[in-house]
Amino acid sequence: MIKSGLKINPWCNPANVFRAANDLALGLITVVLYQLEMQNRHLLIQNCHVCFCFPLQLLYEEWASYSVFYKYQPIGLIRKYFGEKIGLYFAWLGVYTQMLIPAAIVGVIVFLYGCATVDDDIPSMEICDPRNNITMCPLCDRACSYWKLVTACGTARASHLFDNPATVFFSIFMALWAVIFMEHWKRRQMRLNYIWDLTGFEEEEDHCRADYEVRVMEKTLRQEHATPKVTLTGLSSSLSPSFQISVTFAIVFGVILYRISIKAALHMSSYPAARSNIRATVKTTAAIINLIVIIILDEVYAAIARWLTTLEVPKTDKSFEERLIFKTFILKFVNAFTPIVYLAFFRGRLVGRPGNYLYVVGSYRMEECAHAGCLMELCIQLCITMLGKQLIQNNLFEIGIPKLKKLLRKRKSEIDPEQEKELNKTLHRHEKDHFLGPFIGLSPEYMEMIIQFGMVTLFVASFPLAPLFALLNNIIEIRLDAKKFVMELRRPIAARAKDIGIWYNLLRGLSKVAVIVNAFVISFTSDFIPRLVYQYMYSPDGSMHGFVNHTLSYFNVKDFQKDTEPLQPMHLGYKVEICRYKDYREPPWSSTPYELSKEFWAILAARLAFVIVFQNVVMLMSDFVDWLIPDIPKDISLQIHKEKILMVELFMKEEQGKRLAARDNHNQENCTSSSSANQSPLQPRSRPASHLNAANC
Amino acid sequence: MIKSGLKINPWCNPANVFRAANDLALGLITVVLYQLEMQNRHLLIQNCHVCFCFPLQLLYEEWASYSVFYKYQPIGLIRKYFGEKIGLYFAWLGVYTQMLIPAAIVGVIVFLYGCATVDDDIPSMEICDPRNNITMCPLCDRACSYWKLVTACGTARASHLFDNPATVFFSIFMALWAVIFMEHWKRRQMRLNYIWDLTGFEEEEDHCRADYEVRVMEKTLRQEHATPKVTLTGLSSSLSPSFQISVTFAIVFGVILYRISIKAALHMSSYPAARSNIRATVKTTAAIINLIVIIILDEVYAAIARWLTTLEVPKTDKSFEERLIFKTFILKFVNAFTPIVYLAFFRGRLVGRPGNYLYVVGSYRMEECAHAGCLMELCIQLCITMLGKQLIQNNLFEIGIPKLKKLLRKRKSEIDPEQEKELNKTLHRHEKDHFLGPFIGLSPEYMEMIIQFGMVTLFVASFPLAPLFALLNNIIEIRLDAKKFVMELRRPIAARAKDIGIWYNLLRGLSKVAVIVNAFVISFTSDFIPRLVYQYMYSPDGSMHGFVNHTLSYFNVKDFQKDTEPLQPMHLGYKVEICRYKDYREPPWSSTPYELSKEFWAILAARLAFVIVFQNVVMLMSDFVDWLIPDIPKDISLQIHKEKILMVELFMKEEQGKRLAARDNHNQENCTSSSSANQSPLQPRSRPASHLNAANC
Repeated sequence: MIKSGLKINPWCNPANVFRAANDLALGLITVVLYQLEMQNRHLLIQNCHVCFCFPLQLLYEEWASYSVFYKYQPIGLIRKYFGEKIGLYFAWLGVYTQMLIPAAIVGVIVFLYGCATVDDDIPSMEICDPRNNITMCPLCDRACSYWKLVTACGTARASHLFDNPATVFFSIFMALWAVIFMEHWKRRQMRLNYIWDLTGFEEEEDHCRADYEVRVMEKTLRQEHATPKVTLTGLSSSLSPSFQISVTFAIVFGVILYRISIKAALHMSSYPAARSNIRATVKTTAAIINLIVIIILDEVYAAIARWLTTLEVPKTDKSFEERLIFKTFILKFVNAFTPIVYLAFFRGRLVGRPGNYLYVVGSYRMEECAHAGCLMELCIQLCITMLGKQLIQNNLFEIGIPKLKKLLRKRKSEIDPEQEKELNKTLHRHEKDHFLGPFIGLSPEYMEMIIQFGMVTLFVASFPLAPLFALLNNIIEIRLDAKKFVMELRRPIAARAKDIGIWYNLLRGLSKVAVIVNAFVISFTSDFIPRLVYQYMYSPDGSMHGFVNHTLSYFNVKDFQKDTEPLQPMHLGYKVEICRYKDYREPPWSSTPYELSKEFWAILAARLAFVIVFQNVVMLMSDFVDWLIPDIPKDISLQIHKEKILMVELFMKEEQGKRLAARDNHNQENCTSSSSANQSPLQPRSRPASHLNAANC
Repeated sequence: MIKSGLKINPWCNPANVFRAANDLALGLITVVLYQLEMQNRHLLIQNCHVCFCFPLQLLYEEWASYSVFYKYQPIGLIRKYFGEKIGLYFAWLGVYTQMLIPAAIVGVIVFLYGCATVDDDIPSMEICDPRNNITMCPLCDRACSYWKLVTACGTARASHLFDNPATVFFSIFMALWAVIFMEHWKRRQMRLNYIWDLTGFEEEEDHCRADYEVRVMEKTLRQEHATPKVTLTGLSSSLSPSFQISVTFAIVFGVILYRISIKAALHMSSYPAARSNIRATVKTTAAIINLIVIIILDEVYAAIARWLTTLEVPKTDKSFEERLIFKTFILKFVNAFTPIVYLAFFRGRLVGRPGNYLYVVGSYRMEECAHAGCLMELCIQLCITMLGKQLIQNNLFEIGIPKLKKLLRKRKSEIDPEQEKELNKTLHRHEKDHFLGPFIGLSPEYMEMIIQFGMVTLFVASFPLAPLFALLNNIIEIRLDAKKFVMELRRPIAARAKDIGIWYNLLRGLSKVAVIVNAFVISFTSDFIPRLVYQYMYSPDGSMHGFVNHTLSYFNVKDFQKDTEPLQPMHLGYKVEICRYKDYREPPWSSTPYELSKEFWAILAARLAFVIVFQNVVMLMSDFVDWLIPDIPKDISLQIHKEKILMVELFMKEEQGKRLAARDNHNQENCTSSSSANQSPLQPRSRPASHLNAANC
């Protein structure tokens, strides 16, 4: 109410334009740049009535151009042209991108630390040392033969890049980063709410959706006629919400099973030989195939989610949107993360052991991980999914398809180019804009970012470069989205909003899940815990020497099951009697051969203990950070408080004024009735209120 | 603003008194009771001017009497007489007590389940079976001798009462109970806020404390004179807050160490013989001594907390109170829970093994638990602490000491009884009230309840009857506090408050910590996990038969350290060669005698896995419940929304009225100036506004 005066004709006040410029300025440089630019925009500022028509031009120059990627976004302008809801999305995207900068820097440092220490890593040195003449058991039945551990040298060294103690630090850092990001956003949102005068704004109740009204009408009709006819709508309307939820979860579960089996089949059939280079190629190919499957399924799931939500017939548009978002999120999230979760937690766990492998689907053996653990493969998968998803979905889907649609739309209207030029001249702006694509809501934009946020936080322990990739993507993404909003889409109907709604809850949920997922990745996927346990419990000299030997169990080749021994037993040039495999089991010469050894249980206990400690410490620290940072910035809360006091004062004064006026009236009536004889009846009525006290009638 | 009309003279409207009666009525019965009572209170309602002076009388009858213990408290009356802050305390206490009812019922059922199944419990049957002729190793050096496991029969059976699968269910139930309690309170608070017209109320900023102002003045003075003189106040003012926090934590740590050593010393020196009955007596005595120590230290810590907070020189009264509460809470909490935590998690963990016991403070052996685990002792400790603390602190401190003080105060004035009677007749009410004790704040009341809440939630896995005891205590506590407020204390200055402040955060923190503590109690203190692991991994027939034997390791008496073998080796009547002790270690005849066995690590892993699963499942369920229950009751949020709309409408109307009036003025001025010639100059000014539209001048 107090600031509403500002809103009138904001484009015509040069001071306002300057203020907007200041908003977006990244320090002094921008101010200087602006003053240069201002000379070009001479006309714009001089002639106020013209500048009112050019916000889109301004937005294009200040926002939807790659050349301004280093500047803050002109959020005020965006809000003025597109409304609060879209303004909040871009503000959020800006805060997220900005917060990714420190994360990316620390991630790169962690990665560089891995690179720098790769030559000091004793386990990979031991693997690469040809003097440690370790013969490994074959990796597949019959076709594969024994192999030398030294051939896994490259993978072991590469694994160290992502599997080193700095990763543990980075996971903790990223968990706290997520909390700080949420807090930062809450404060920014509060500030925007204040600046945009939304502090007192409450969302009005939605009107009922047409579907819902139809359904209610049908219901009453049916009740009136009491016929037991069951239509499709009737059927869907009788589905309870709990049934709907269970359908969603059944689909999710089906997706998981289907994806895991696809994944397993792909991996199992892919390589008969166990050469390291071929393996890497195969893995990369598999990851790319997987990526394509993800992208295709993404579209299918979006359709399923929409169909399921339509079946539910939600009451209002808002509840429709929220339910749709929630369903789409679950399906897309599961779709994107199933292969990653499979790689991180299930690959190589249920393999069995030489002589007693686990077979699925007839005679396929479950796939093992390389010696250095599955972390490397997880890393490749994450890298390809992130880069690929972003490149393909951004470029192909966000730029390519709208352009294609636009072309098709123009084709339909069947006008030859010259005519078009003619038309362009005669057509009004709003007629031309009809050729643009319609605005379909912010959900896809948010969804993309939330899935990315998941990639950045959930498995950051296995891929410290994720924040960097996300940052690079987002710098482009902001301007890409800006261009899309300014150039490709019809101007959306401006909507007010106080916050980003359900997305905030999803982000919060993700950052909570991230803590436990990272704890499990560090303790179960990486070799961090086995190394620690070896160093402090088993190592004879307290160093890591002998760790590789400690992780390998012995297998007597006589114990192979029938028809599973290698076809070429002399592949390495000598007869193998004992081969090694990665597991903690009793040797063949113990009283209980091939049973899980005491080391296995000790390391398992250590892993689990680490999960408990990590989870609780990080949660405690997160809660502490959350408590430390106030939700409302100090200056804003002071301002709001002051304004409230002002309001109350204003109120009081007005009430007082009214009461005085009332007394005035009353007194005067008394006066006129009681002392009409003494005074002139034509006394003027507009005497000031302050005189009243003196006039003691 | 809208409801403020209600507040005027609430005592004089019979309808209001009836409404208050309805508020406190527990169903129909109370309404009937009321109508009977109303006849007695004839005068009260008939003569309005008299009833205005009798709220205290009403409060005494409706609230501060044990005979109304089954009724809801008259919160509205309490608030009207004592103010919102105290009203909220009693409302909170009421909600807490009410919520304890289902918890107590389920707790009793769980306990009864334990009682009912004690005869079917195979492990305790095996222990009590004299045919299982198991010889146990001595429980102390030299003085103790070997003993038969069958003598531990009683303890084993008693342990089953608290250590059975129902306890696991009860822990989960109580974790969810805590969440529901918090949610329920939030809703109740919101409702009270609405009824008491506090929804728009914001706490005003506190004035600075005198201490703080003195400190600031001294600082400026010192800066002006620039003398390096360091006074005590100067010293204390230079202490940074982080230093203050570290001092608090140092004291806490010191307390823990001191208490554990006291506890250990008490236990170590207490019983040379190992008879079961004597043991129980000794334990009970130790627990009582411990209780007395707790109660005495409680007072000491309160003083320390106050002293520390004074050193900090907080700026405002509010921050002083919050800091004081936080410090007192930490100290009192640590004080009350150290012995319990010691019993639950440290007793019997660091004992060593026969032949290699762990000795502390020279030659004292760390104490072991009985065969069935420390759960029984934990239970006794909890029971005595809860009952004793409540009885002694409630009765002695809350009733006895104020009475004593009152007596002393009367003594001081030295008036003989007859004179007093005379005086009583002549003295005014406010003069008589001067003999009452001063009101010292709500902190002690809240603190007592929070510690109790901790007892109820934190270790509920080991003592399912805790909620019942708490419930019984609170039913008395409410009326006791009521009596104190009505009769013993001077009427406190009424203070407004929107919520219970820092106490809510402390409760929330406790209910979070409770989840992890219960997870650890179930998995580490109780025998739940070892039983499960035995049943599914080691049992030959899938039953619990042989569990007791499985938990006992073998010890060859030849391996006793010098001077530690029992003085009476023939105590049992035969020569012992192999004795048993409770641990999972390799037997003397293995290749690595007395080392931790594979079973130990497997069970440890299972325990840790249980903690992870329990914590995450319960946290997920809690979050779900939290999300399911809206913070603001539906009807209240609707009401608030409606009132807001009404306010806006009112505003609009007024503004419109003003604008119309302004236009009226303006028009008339125009009229008089332009058409003064046509119309009479003596036209009356008070024409209605609706005429303006028609008058088209």
